[in-house]
Amino acid sequence: MANINITFPDGSVKQFESGVTPLQIAESLSPQLARDILAASVNDKEWDITRPVNEDASIRLFKWDDPEGKHAFWHSSAHLLAEALQDLFPGVKFGIGPAIENGFYYDIDPGENTITSADFPRIEKRMLELAQQKNPIVRADISKADALKLFGDRGEEYKCELISELEDGHITTYTQGSFTDLCRGPHIATTAPIKAVKVTSLAGAYWRGDEKRNQLVRVYGITFPKKKMLDEYLVLLEEAKKRDHRKLGKEMELFAFSQNVGAGLPLWLPKGTALRDRLEQFLRKIQKQYGYQQVITPHIGNKNLYVTSGHYAKYGKDSFQPIHTPEEGEEYLLKPMNCPHHCEIFRALPRSYRDLPLRLAEFGTVYRYEQSGELHGLTRVRGFTQDDAHIYCAPDQIKGEFLKVMDIIFFIFKALKFENFEAQISLRDPNNKEKYIGSDENWHLAEQAIIDACEEKGLKARKEYGEAAFYGPKLDFMVKDALGRKWQLGTIQVDYNLPERFQLEYTGSDNQKHRPVMIHRAPFGSMERFVAVLLEHTAGRFPLWLAPEQAVVLPISEKFNDYARKVADQLNALDIRTQIDDRNEKIGKKIRDNELKRIPYMLIVGEKEAENDEISVRKQGEGDKGSMKIATFAAELAREVNEMINQQ
Amino acid sequence: MANINITFPDGSVKQFESGVTPLQIAESLSPQLARDILAASVNDKEWDITRPVNEDASIRLFKWDDPEGKHAFWHSSAHLLAEALQDLFPGVKFGIGPAIENGFYYDIDPGENTITSADFPRIEKRMLELAQQKNPIVRADISKADALKLFGDRGEEYKCELISELEDGHITTYTQGSFTDLCRGPHIATTAPIKAVKVTSLAGAYWRGDEKRNQLVRVYGITFPKKKMLDEYLVLLEEAKKRDHRKLGKEMELFAFSQNVGAGLPLWLPKGTALRDRLEQFLRKIQKQYGYQQVITPHIGNKNLYVTSGHYAKYGKDSFQPIHTPEEGEEYLLKPMNCPHHCEIFRALPRSYRDLPLRLAEFGTVYRYEQSGELHGLTRVRGFTQDDAHIYCAPDQIKGEFLKVMDIIFFIFKALKFENFEAQISLRDPNNKEKYIGSDENWHLAEQAIIDACEEKGLKARKEYGEAAFYGPKLDFMVKDALGRKWQLGTIQVDYNLPERFQLEYTGSDNQKHRPVMIHRAPFGSMERFVAVLLEHTAGRFPLWLAPEQAVVLPISEKFNDYARKVADQLNALDIRTQIDDRNEKIGKKIRDNELKRIPYMLIVGEKEAENDEISVRKQGEGDKGSMKIATFAAELAREVNEMINQQ
Repeated sequence: MANINITFPDGSVKQFESGVTPLQIAESLSPQLARDILAASVNDKEWDITRPVNEDASIRLFKWDDPEGKHAFWHSSAHLLAEALQDLFPGVKFGIGPAIENGFYYDIDPGENTITSADFPRIEKRMLELAQQKNPIVRADISKADALKLFGDRGEEYKCELISELEDGHITTYTQGSFTDLCRGPHIATTAPIKAVKVTSLAGAYWRGDEKRNQLVRVYGITFPKKKMLDEYLVLLEEAKKRDHRKLGKEMELFAFSQNVGAGLPLWLPKGTALRDRLEQFLRKIQKQYGYQQVITPHIGNKNLYVTSGHYAKYGKDSFQPIHTPEEGEEYLLKPMNCPHHCEIFRALPRSYRDLPLRLAEFGTVYRYEQSGELHGLTRVRGFTQDDAHIYCAPDQIKGEFLKVMDIIFFIFKALKFENFEAQISLRDPNNKEKYIGSDENWHLAEQAIIDACEEKGLKARKEYGEAAFYGPKLDFMVKDALGRKWQLGTIQVDYNLPERFQLEYTGSDNQKHRPVMIHRAPFGSMERFVAVLLEHTAGRFPLWLAPEQAVVLPISEKFNDYARKVADQLNALDIRTQIDDRNEKIGKKIRDNELKRIPYMLIVGEKEAENDEISVRKQGEGDKGSMKIATFAAELAREVNEMINQQ
Repeated sequence: MANINITFPDGSVKQFESGVTPLQIAESLSPQLARDILAASVNDKEWDITRPVNEDASIRLFKWDDPEGKHAFWHSSAHLLAEALQDLFPGVKFGIGPAIENGFYYDIDPGENTITSADFPRIEKRMLELAQQKNPIVRADISKADALKLFGDRGEEYKCELISELEDGHITTYTQGSFTDLCRGPHIATTAPIKAVKVTSLAGAYWRGDEKRNQLVRVYGITFPKKKMLDEYLVLLEEAKKRDHRKLGKEMELFAFSQNVGAGLPLWLPKGTALRDRLEQFLRKIQKQYGYQQVITPHIGNKNLYVTSGHYAKYGKDSFQPIHTPEEGEEYLLKPMNCPHHCEIFRALPRSYRDLPLRLAEFGTVYRYEQSGELHGLTRVRGFTQDDAHIYCAPDQIKGEFLKVMDIIFFIFKALKFENFEAQISLRDPNNKEKYIGSDENWHLAEQAIIDACEEKGLKARKEYGEAAFYGPKLDFMVKDALGRKWQLGTIQVDYNLPERFQLEYTGSDNQKHRPVMIHRAPFGSMERFVAVLLEHTAGRFPLWLAPEQAVVLPISEKFNDYARKVADQLNALDIRTQIDDRNEKIGKKIRDNELKRIPYMLIVGEKEAENDEISVRKQGEGDKGSMKIATFAAELAREVNEMINQQ
């Protein structure tokens, strides 16, 4: 047999016999790797680890920790779920069964069967039994006619509909045990690695997402290669439920939604608004120090503005439609981005090199339509306020500006305790330079500026070639929250496109016209999403400086409401955000209710306290701190806040 | 002849012979009044002072100081202009010639003539000659046929078109000297009072505003009963031009408009944004003291929200049209008002009497379409930010809330030096109570609450019966600016309608459901309009605490740029907003340019200053203040700002 060259991600090349499988390649490298690999890619194409490679190729091997590894694992688990359902519920018919972000699902037509959550344990049990048979998962090419016959004979009408739309010669099935599925793969080699199974929920789903077609039952599940992993996942899931920002937001009276206003359009209640304002002030302060200038622009713009910017081509069809006016020929759009408006501000005055870098910042509310099914609390909305800024600079100022923006981002991460984060530099595909706008020289300069800036900051950033947008390279930050979930926070994006489209110019020191470079950046991304992330990260227990309410006074009975009022007034006069709970309720209930509101300090006042001009202090999460004078508490709290602010 | 009863505005009644004219009635009261009156109303109908009154009637007599008096004076002056044009430009044909806010115009078809501003002096001269003929202005009823013949014979095609649309039996003409016009009146008695004339400008205007019809020449003018008044007016006009906020806004780099974004949609440049932010912080601070809670709501809402509120019926057809989405059946509107959103926030939580008064405040940007011809700088725009708040309270809390809002309004007027203002209470028409929503008892309560609140504040407010909106009484403030022009700033409006439409409820202390009353208030009205008024009132010379830039350092040559930078850094570190003008320009030009920018302090630095660590201080409007140490200046400026802030 002929030899082929296999290139590894580090660039090294090894020879193997033609027909070698990724699994065999892994075995040649290390027995541990062979045990761990779940999937592969061959020349960037997804590949089963047992599928032969017959020509020179670049190869990547994926383990559980790689998204591609999990994906294959869960995709095979979906087939395992289907096999179990086929055994337990005869006559069930299958739709599609993909891997998703956390686990997998299978859409089924239950036929005569009724499936409820009471069935989950026996489904799980059957899946584990089948997994323990360690059946190989076998790929097969099949002709269209044979596929139609195979699935048609079994009455699998949904599969037949899918097959009828496929091109002959490109149809494959995967079989494990007694179950064969129409599938492109890739899959793991056998069912053996599937050691822990959880069927999580049921939902209704229209066949092909079309509400005029049959409604199927969507069975969700998740699997793991170790029992311990499932246990940890379930604990995390439970904790994530408790921290769900939609639940916390309601309990803490931060925001609300109203169908009368519209789905995905949050109403910020007073406490949420105060929180947002505090975050905004925090950003404004640091941005002012770094020379940003605030601007305010309208929430609509002439449609032509977005045709110029290219946003109409991108968002036009799928977003909020143009706004017509009584005067003919005018059309406006809700702005999906602030950048076109900022470019118009750049153009509003003659600009010279002395004005650069010009850093225009705006807490700009933008509107983008999302399908109603995709909306989710504050993380997927139809209107949101970006902590946006655009920096217009000369090409040789890019590195300096990246350093400054990184300072701001690190400051934010530290102040809000997102200390666990990763960074990625997205660069051009060096073999496809013609895909990108802007001169080769400028790209080289900008990419090197980002790389140098990261090095200067001692930031280990992953470099990804080919991941840059067509208009410029970028630096992305991903933070891990308290539950280990990753959130993208903070992108710094170079843009050669908009300055070109808007024909932006400044007069250089050479008295000639030059085109500036534009840098987009929004450390929070949006106020809405950031508040959601912060709520889930802190479980609503905000740092004292940020808490909408810092203290609440709880009179033990109505008799002490006047004294409570006096305490609150004194504290508010000292700028300590203090409320009173003077409801006619038992003190125990008041404490429980205010625990839920996550107010850092509860100040309990009764006869003894009123007599001595004191308060009994309970700190959220720490409990009773004893009685003290109001002034002592105020000084202590001010010191605590001050320390936090100076620490930043 | 029979006697008739004439009722005067103060309620007194006098008998006159039937056929008496308002002029005769005035003569019976005082010879001076007879000399002064220009127009009248009889039973609220406009009336010439020489027109007989034949039945019992209420009468009002108008002098120059009454808008109705000026209106008749300028309307007659328009006829005088036409008479002069007819003399000077044979063949000219006439469109319409109304009185306007300041003066009047006449639209004419010049035929073979060419009229330019070079003709103004001879037109003015001819008008004065004709006025001095003291011709009576005589009203005549005329049949439609006679009118068509009269104007048709003269070839007055425009007049004939108008007549052809009038109802026979209701057509009148007015004649003075050799000029007869189709006109409803009223007019002054003779041309004698017209003592001073100015033809101000020419413009093009389509006949009947229709761009498919002939373009006519619109001749603008203004007249006065005294020469001195014209002189004063011209000085004021010159000063108003200098203070035009559009001119100042450009010079001071506060805001800009871009046709690419859209007409009437201001872009706030950094300096304007800083000014707006400062005003906003100023309001936020005082509102916080008065228990307002900030909220944030989206700039769009489901169309049904505005159908519920009634705004769709009011704004729907003539404003920005509904926004469609890719999902069917959904329609959104740009919000023309914040109130519906605030009502939804009221509904977002269960409300009790303990939550009232609930004061929800928002700097909410709203969008209302205005015809492009009506747009004017920041005073007539299509998008503006209201300093809006809605107070939800129990009926017996209205007076207390009016007192509090008046406190805020007076505080603002004082701090921003609008010390000259008037107030008006708009009440129900007591003879038409069925026109109004809400119970008779509630109306009585609310009206009395407003009247009592004004009395308690020692505010002399004019009471206007029948001026209330159908949904509640209100209190309006009109300020006079430095040029004596009146601006409406500050309305406090009771509303019984929206709580009804939104079915708002709170639980009373009786544990029953009650409907709250709503109070709308926006002391500034909109940030845009207020900044415009403030610019024109102060001529851009803002109080020091408000000025976007408090100081600018002017190095006398580039050699001292470093020292200038050091000075600016020191001052900025002390929160004194300081810029540098380090352009390579002569110091004289720098001073002139920065004068234009109205920066309160110019700090000039050269060799002597750099050596002694000093600055030469020039104060805007006051000139040279001598050299001083940086710290001395900083302390002095901080003291000045502090004094202003404490004064508030």
